[in-house]
Amino acid sequence: MTDPTAALVVVGNEVLSAKVQDENGPWAARRLRALGVRLVAVRVVADRVEDIAAAVREERQRASWVFTSGGVGPTHDDVTLAAVAAALGRPVVRLAALEAALRALHRRHHGEAELPEAALRMADVPEGSRLLGDPGYPTLAVENVFVLPGPPAFFRRQFDQVAPLLAGPPFRLAAVYLSVGEERFAAELAAVAAAHPEVEMGSYPRFDEGACYRVRVTVESRDAARVEAALGEFLRALPPGWVLRSEGP
Amino acid sequence: MTDPTAALVVVGNEVLSAKVQDENGPWAARRLRALGVRLVAVRVVADRVEDIAAAVREERQRASWVFTSGGVGPTHDDVTLAAVAAALGRPVVRLAALEAALRALHRRHHGEAELPEAALRMADVPEGSRLLGDPGYPTLAVENVFVLPGPPAFFRRQFDQVAPLLAGPPFRLAAVYLSVGEERFAAELAAVAAAHPEVEMGSYPRFDEGACYRVRVTVESRDAARVEAALGEFLRALPPGWVLRSEGP
Repeated sequence: MTDPTAALVVVGNEVLSAKVQDENGPWAARRLRALGVRLVAVRVVADRVEDIAAAVREERQRASWVFTSGGVGPTHDDVTLAAVAAALGRPVVRLAALEAALRALHRRHHGEAELPEAALRMADVPEGSRLLGDPGYPTLAVENVFVLPGPPAFFRRQFDQVAPLLAGPPFRLAAVYLSVGEERFAAELAAVAAAHPEVEMGSYPRFDEGACYRVRVTVESRDAARVEAALGEFLRALPPGWVLRSEGP
Repeated sequence: MTDPTAALVVVGNEVLSAKVQDENGPWAARRLRALGVRLVAVRVVADRVEDIAAAVREERQRASWVFTSGGVGPTHDDVTLAAVAAALGRPVVRLAALEAALRALHRRHHGEAELPEAALRMADVPEGSRLLGDPGYPTLAVENVFVLPGPPAFFRRQFDQVAPLLAGPPFRLAAVYLSVGEERFAAELAAVAAAHPEVEMGSYPRFDEGACYRVRVTVESRDAARVEAALGEFLRALPPGWVLRSEGP
């Protein structure tokens, strides 16, 4: 069974300095999960070539695919293309198809006015990049890295043009809601988790007054039969009074 | 002028698999900014010793302080303490003060019942850790790493007991709202940014139909006079019709 994985690198001084809250990470997490792609890391990094390059370099060892979000506009703080080139050890070259697309887009909006030369740095990309999605806003693929725009509407639209191609078998999820604290069943849960290493078991306590349960235990795998087996074993290990309800897979 | 920096490592299978949306990252970003601490990275990593340890090891090179969020409960998926120990090359030892606090807390809630042995792994911490904040929920400091609980209410409460100690001089921010696209003023902005390397200049386009401006340019530094100087230079470089308004510092 294939296990496609992905990492997301959010290029975002504005996120780190709390000028805006990142929307692309949570959205991509939901979308990738639904596609059967395991998200293994999200990194928000500053608009600095070294920081972005280090994140891309490290994450593409860990994940089958790396997405970047943001830093692909025409201003001096847009350095993602240079950073991805550095991470891959590729030179930066002008992509003629992208230059033509940018010029055409500018003419459509501004008539005869020429696109300022500075704006053409959006077309200076890692050598070997392929232009994907809508040509007006740079969306590039090079090796296992997808370079996407940062504004959420554009990010989503371009993401949906490439991510479905990476889809894997769906995840199957079951959950148990418990009326007691984690410390009461930690040993039983650890034993079941150890006996089912191919199933992911998570334990998520709630501490807010309004919660109608104390802990949600999740049981997850791409294989429903394995989820059933681990779920049954965990339920049998508990006094029935502790289980409020269970659901799935 | 001191420039205290921080990084946040969110330990979160549940965030990566989209079971919950991380609240601690955005909250910490706002809080640190208000405290004059520069946040240089946020990383969401899986509940795996290797992944957490790599993130802590890398970020504590980059930042003065590293905060971790989550993975400090009593269940098998709580591996942050072991990972921080691995990142620092320190053995894991039982912290007597934390063990006593956990036992006392359990007695208060459950009368005479003994705390299950499995739950005491919460007290197995990197050697040399100091116990901070409320002893009931592990909040530890070791070298330049703060280990905080994941549930947002606990994270915030414990964070506020330590973060103010790291505060630096406040950031001063000015902003210019423009009626034209980034490509029109990218060259002028790049020139001002290059002339003021100690001032951070960011450019944030809006593409949604309802936006009342096209681009927000931010000018930021700990020094208000430097912000004023860069702001004035940028405004003088633009045709007045392009500027909708400016504000700050």
